[in-house]
Amino acid sequence: MEPLRSHLARITHLNQAAAVLEWDMETYMPTGGAEARSKQVATLRSMAHELLVSDETASLLDRAKPTSAIDEDLVRVVLKDAEKASRVPSSLIAALAEASGRAKGAWQEARSTNTFALFAPHLERIVDLSIQHAEALGYTEQPYDALLDQYEEGATTQKVSDVFEEVRSQLVPFVKEITGTGMSCEGPLHREYPEAEQWAFGLRMAERIGYDLDHGRQDRSAHPFSTSFSTTDVRITTRLEERFFNPAFFGTLHEAGHAIYEQGIDPALEGTPLADGTSLGMHESQSRLWENLIGRSLPFWEYAYPQAQKAFPLALSDVSLDAFYRAINSVSPSTIRVEADEVTYNLHIMLRFELEQKMITGAVAVADLPQEWNDRMEAWLGVRPLNDSEGVLQDIHWSLGAIGYFPTYALGNLMSVQLFDAAKAAIPNLDEHFRAGDFSPLLGWLRTNVHQWGRRRTASEILVAATGSDLDATPWMTYLRRKYEALVAR
Amino acid sequence: MEPLRSHLARITHLNQAAAVLEWDMETYMPTGGAEARSKQVATLRSMAHELLVSDETASLLDRAKPTSAIDEDLVRVVLKDAEKASRVPSSLIAALAEASGRAKGAWQEARSTNTFALFAPHLERIVDLSIQHAEALGYTEQPYDALLDQYEEGATTQKVSDVFEEVRSQLVPFVKEITGTGMSCEGPLHREYPEAEQWAFGLRMAERIGYDLDHGRQDRSAHPFSTSFSTTDVRITTRLEERFFNPAFFGTLHEAGHAIYEQGIDPALEGTPLADGTSLGMHESQSRLWENLIGRSLPFWEYAYPQAQKAFPLALSDVSLDAFYRAINSVSPSTIRVEADEVTYNLHIMLRFELEQKMITGAVAVADLPQEWNDRMEAWLGVRPLNDSEGVLQDIHWSLGAIGYFPTYALGNLMSVQLFDAAKAAIPNLDEHFRAGDFSPLLGWLRTNVHQWGRRRTASEILVAATGSDLDATPWMTYLRRKYEALVAR
Repeated sequence: MEPLRSHLARITHLNQAAAVLEWDMETYMPTGGAEARSKQVATLRSMAHELLVSDETASLLDRAKPTSAIDEDLVRVVLKDAEKASRVPSSLIAALAEASGRAKGAWQEARSTNTFALFAPHLERIVDLSIQHAEALGYTEQPYDALLDQYEEGATTQKVSDVFEEVRSQLVPFVKEITGTGMSCEGPLHREYPEAEQWAFGLRMAERIGYDLDHGRQDRSAHPFSTSFSTTDVRITTRLEERFFNPAFFGTLHEAGHAIYEQGIDPALEGTPLADGTSLGMHESQSRLWENLIGRSLPFWEYAYPQAQKAFPLALSDVSLDAFYRAINSVSPSTIRVEADEVTYNLHIMLRFELEQKMITGAVAVADLPQEWNDRMEAWLGVRPLNDSEGVLQDIHWSLGAIGYFPTYALGNLMSVQLFDAAKAAIPNLDEHFRAGDFSPLLGWLRTNVHQWGRRRTASEILVAATGSDLDATPWMTYLRRKYEALVAR
Repeated sequence: MEPLRSHLARITHLNQAAAVLEWDMETYMPTGGAEARSKQVATLRSMAHELLVSDETASLLDRAKPTSAIDEDLVRVVLKDAEKASRVPSSLIAALAEASGRAKGAWQEARSTNTFALFAPHLERIVDLSIQHAEALGYTEQPYDALLDQYEEGATTQKVSDVFEEVRSQLVPFVKEITGTGMSCEGPLHREYPEAEQWAFGLRMAERIGYDLDHGRQDRSAHPFSTSFSTTDVRITTRLEERFFNPAFFGTLHEAGHAIYEQGIDPALEGTPLADGTSLGMHESQSRLWENLIGRSLPFWEYAYPQAQKAFPLALSDVSLDAFYRAINSVSPSTIRVEADEVTYNLHIMLRFELEQKMITGAVAVADLPQEWNDRMEAWLGVRPLNDSEGVLQDIHWSLGAIGYFPTYALGNLMSVQLFDAAKAAIPNLDEHFRAGDFSPLLGWLRTNVHQWGRRRTASEILVAATGSDLDATPWMTYLRRKYEALVAR
């Protein structure tokens, strides 16, 4: 195992170094450094890829003699990674990189000038290359399966469609039901929240729920993200809006949720490809759990609200806990995904999932995308984008060639409730702990059942072992109904 | 040339990435991330080394067909680099790394407990390995030449000794002469200098002399340094002392001087090993030029002092320009190198140079080092360290295995005046430009004569082409005499 581990450590270190360079690019890099930096990252990533698909990897895997369960998992996962990576010809990887390089610029131009036609040919090219990519990767039922599998191993289009269909059939009427019950007033969230206090309050709460600042830190960036340089250095970024409480606070909890997952991976996996989140859906389940199931819950704010009032006296001294709780849980269908509330968010995802599939099968032509998009927005959410910039052009993902990525956001939401329900069943009186500001019982349960495993278990295996069931939409719908029924009744 | 350039770009990108990781380690990395980070850096550095000494490099060099002067320089320099790198067996590199890893910890312990004996066996090991290193690298006259050549290509022990001897014979009596002329009063520099204003004032002056913040930035670190991630991203760090003006201000100018050098390298060299300073001595000439020849000059402060008074009213409103100028130029022999003034600094270096040589030849045993050190301090500077922590244990360099490095500091001081004199001869009325806050004529001259060349020319070639003469101690001594005679006469 030792020669294999040394070899894999090199690959891991190259990818970790690339992550540091990318983090710096979004946080501190002077503007003039971008071009050289992109080349540096490309070199590190392609050297890591070359090492992974090299004969040396194959031969080391062949000769490896696993002597522990971790060793066995390592050999199995790396075999699969190497096999998948070697299926895609490097000419296709290069073509995808080049196409998305061009598409990104075109998308920015298209969005800022509200001209879908500028982006359309680039998106067509990306769809075309994604189909080739799916063919290269291979699949059993349909090409989209292969794309989805890159981000959510083992998920299939059919399975995800079934689950999403079930959610949508209940969610669309539910949104209509609770919209206009008069419970939505975000007003207090748009008052004066000084940046320094937002920074400190968010970080204090992130630490309180379990984010370890001896092995992490927070910086500013235009778009918040979390990133891991090792299980002992997992960082988050946040953005601050002086007159809006939500972006910094919920963004910080969200990113801290991702980071807490990575910090909780078994240290024995460090330096191997196993030391990573098991799928994007499972990752999102952790960020959403802390952001929504904790961060938008009453027990959490029964603990945290006095501190919030102290931190933001100008904004909150005359706002009751009840009014604040309503404000952070207001539901208001809108056209923009990243501004969507906890209830309507999944509908934004389902729309993208459906259109992605139809682009890949050819059922929807790129030229018809704006119309198809807007019609669904109107049917599902009751709002229609005024233009394509707040419609089909709002997200960067497709320009990056990331098709198959969106559904993992909704999968994360669904899984988060499945896991939270299981934790509640295992630990009596969790709410009482939250009211006392003690999140360690929940964190401990997540560490044991989710975090420690890294990539040793798939998302599905973790779900089944931890909750007794595979992906299931019912818990999430039940959670929403109970929460909002209680809110309306208060 | 193209395949060679692609290959060299990979090596360059690996080293640049390692520099980013090292910078982060000193500025932002959470404490817990150190162990994983060291491994990442080691992987990047050793992959770069392996690529350089690989058969592929040799074969690409062999097949390269230079079509420009830059191509020719590239092939020549890389041939030499690869040849030198391949002379040292990897077992010796590993032994040096391991020994200095242990020595660093022992040195810290020895210094903090003032116990030379704790460090002595480690230093003996490092001397022993350095001798092996010198033998592997090869030399014509003596082993120390090989060590020196790593940092200052082409410099020889004999040549440096001759120059240093000449300096010392004049400097020792000169220091005695000006010490006690009553011109030393550092008092005003030890008043209240708020950190935020120190930060802003230092950076404004760094920008004013030519440091480009679109391609650089300043951060805090315990020990100031400059580092280059490409010619388009060259950063500096600084440290702040609330009640002492010098460390931040002169440190910032010093590091900015290093950074300005790297920012001025011909962009056509980017991505190749030529895009680097040509030697440590030449690098130091640039930092010292801006720190001392400009930053401690009267014309500079005739421009900058009103701004300094505005930035630090508590400290400077009742201090005349004359008193301030005397304060920043006070001469006071002390035992600590990093606190030494412009005049006595070189004596600290010469002491180390002499003892390094004698350790390598065996003329001085490690056990006798404290005594040898203290005797020289007393003879040359008139001060004797109270203990080894402020004597032989004060510097980290030897514990890192860096023998042959120290002399480059003094070489930089000497070269800085040679270059400055040449610039003054080429550009009439430079002082008038400085008084008006215009440093661009000097910067332009340095760009043309020094910076742009990167490693295409050696330090010696640059000196001869720019000043008409090779390394020469006379200009520096003349500069000191004139400056301090004028100061005493004021």
